[in-house]
Amino acid sequence: MAVKIKDLASDLNLSVATISKALKDSHEISPETKRRVLEHARKLNYTPNPYASGLRKRSSKTIAVVLPEVADSFFSQAINGIEDVAREMGYHVLIYLTHENYSKECEILNEFKSGRVDGILISVSGETIQSNHIKDVINAGVPVVFFDRVCEDVDTAKITTNDAESSYGATMHLIAKGCIRIAFLSVSENLSINNRRMEGFNKAMAERDNKKITAEIVQCGNDGNKNLAIVSKLLKRKKRPDGIIASVEKLITPVYQVCNIEKLTIPSDIKLISFTNLQTAFILNPALTTITQPAFEMGKMAATVLFKALKKKNISLKKESVILPSALVMRNST
Amino acid sequence: MAVKIKDLASDLNLSVATISKALKDSHEISPETKRRVLEHARKLNYTPNPYASGLRKRSSKTIAVVLPEVADSFFSQAINGIEDVAREMGYHVLIYLTHENYSKECEILNEFKSGRVDGILISVSGETIQSNHIKDVINAGVPVVFFDRVCEDVDTAKITTNDAESSYGATMHLIAKGCIRIAFLSVSENLSINNRRMEGFNKAMAERDNKKITAEIVQCGNDGNKNLAIVSKLLKRKKRPDGIIASVEKLITPVYQVCNIEKLTIPSDIKLISFTNLQTAFILNPALTTITQPAFEMGKMAATVLFKALKKKNISLKKESVILPSALVMRNST
Repeated sequence: MAVKIKDLASDLNLSVATISKALKDSHEISPETKRRVLEHARKLNYTPNPYASGLRKRSSKTIAVVLPEVADSFFSQAINGIEDVAREMGYHVLIYLTHENYSKECEILNEFKSGRVDGILISVSGETIQSNHIKDVINAGVPVVFFDRVCEDVDTAKITTNDAESSYGATMHLIAKGCIRIAFLSVSENLSINNRRMEGFNKAMAERDNKKITAEIVQCGNDGNKNLAIVSKLLKRKKRPDGIIASVEKLITPVYQVCNIEKLTIPSDIKLISFTNLQTAFILNPALTTITQPAFEMGKMAATVLFKALKKKNISLKKESVILPSALVMRNST
Repeated sequence: MAVKIKDLASDLNLSVATISKALKDSHEISPETKRRVLEHARKLNYTPNPYASGLRKRSSKTIAVVLPEVADSFFSQAINGIEDVAREMGYHVLIYLTHENYSKECEILNEFKSGRVDGILISVSGETIQSNHIKDVINAGVPVVFFDRVCEDVDTAKITTNDAESSYGATMHLIAKGCIRIAFLSVSENLSINNRRMEGFNKAMAERDNKKITAEIVQCGNDGNKNLAIVSKLLKRKKRPDGIIASVEKLITPVYQVCNIEKLTIPSDIKLISFTNLQTAFILNPALTTITQPAFEMGKMAATVLFKALKKKNISLKKESVILPSALVMRNST
């Protein structure tokens, strides 16, 4: 068992209060007693109980990162950006995964209301359609900063990228490359990023000169097998798309896989662009054209804004929102 | 700010002790008072302070997963296996990243000594050469289970895969495919998995019939740019290897990249096998032969063993060690 203050007290024949004050370097305790207490604490390898000290100071020196998943290159790079800043500030980072599940997200957020962490960075789940669980935490005095996937109606800082603009650019790129049947693979109608990306796609299609070019939104989801079936059905059609925009990374594999099975060649039969930070994008067969988000920088920025709020309580977080630009990286798949 | 017990007490004109007992459903409090307290607590959306209740119960209903990084398909799949079990047990999972840094790992483990979490699952950093920080936590009464990357000298459960055997099989596969200069890309001499994998490689080479076949260990690391330079130097040599075993996932990209630059063809010039759970392995150019670990199952098993120890304090964790088999998945890169 861990050494407790009362063990130190009984060993040194002092009161628990004296030990506690000595450990906190209180002026009420003589230097000689402090020296004895610290020496003995070190000898027994005493560590303060974090619950007790969290209770006292109301600060856990910990921030939470709430994410849908880690098996996604955007999130794993964003975490590195967040940890970069947190380390410098002497804070711990705890990662909580919602697995795209709204009730899990509510459960996690609910725990934060009582001060388990000092602040929260969140990218919401694909099921999240209302935001009371987040507003409640903010009302309980815990600052929250969104990154990437946001709830538009929550009045706090949002670190995002220019999703609509990037998607517009990607669609224009497919049109310039001669695509005439373009499909947008959507992942969840609830997600802010999905809707911004769809918005850019729709805008580009509305502005197209060649009215023969057709657009289509194909609804996919988080289940790999279902996505494979959806893409398979799509590409087996007589009038299959000749250009595809994958709104998230997990939709890349089924497209390559089905093209392989159906003997369709990328890019001659089908051109493909995906939103992704996948480091293997350029060694895929063929190398994948991507919209690459500034993932590390977004994580860094989100953490920086959160620490600003932790330092200065009355900051207006809403004014700290930032939009960072993504990059269209052209490769052989288009 | 969060509602506190004393707010409830002052609103209801009761003592803090009465409120606290009522919330804990104590027999000392009348049913009528309990009803009033609960009703008011619900109305104000009161949540118990986790530090205070952790202090009382000495249980946080939380387990920690300590990992080098999440940008690796093995770890992200293992996390899913861990969460699968934890969710069923009603536990929270907190992910702590060491970023392959030994002192960060010590710092994290040191905090656990005082009961912040109920148990720990760990895969150690590439810098970890001694294990006192882990032994200390175990001595403080917190159960620890290793998975994948272990400290051999710590007397607890280790969930691993048959690394030596898999590596032996991979080497034999390259020999069968006609390779005569085989290089093993090592990642860290400190890592148990690295050494088991190297062991299998050396065993296969020692048993080779054709003594013209040569073996070479190439030391790589965690820095992407340095790895690229090392692989580049290796493949620019006159007598470059014609078979490569990458001991970890992050060494795949530099090999493909250098082959691309140097106009070397996989598999005709160089055959490549890697330890990885990368889901894009089969859509790489060419599709990659892999040693695929049972990542999800290893996470699940590690969590199952830990919960066994949490339920029954006097269990001998050492006896719970399990070795699960990996699979060699042959594709076009060999």
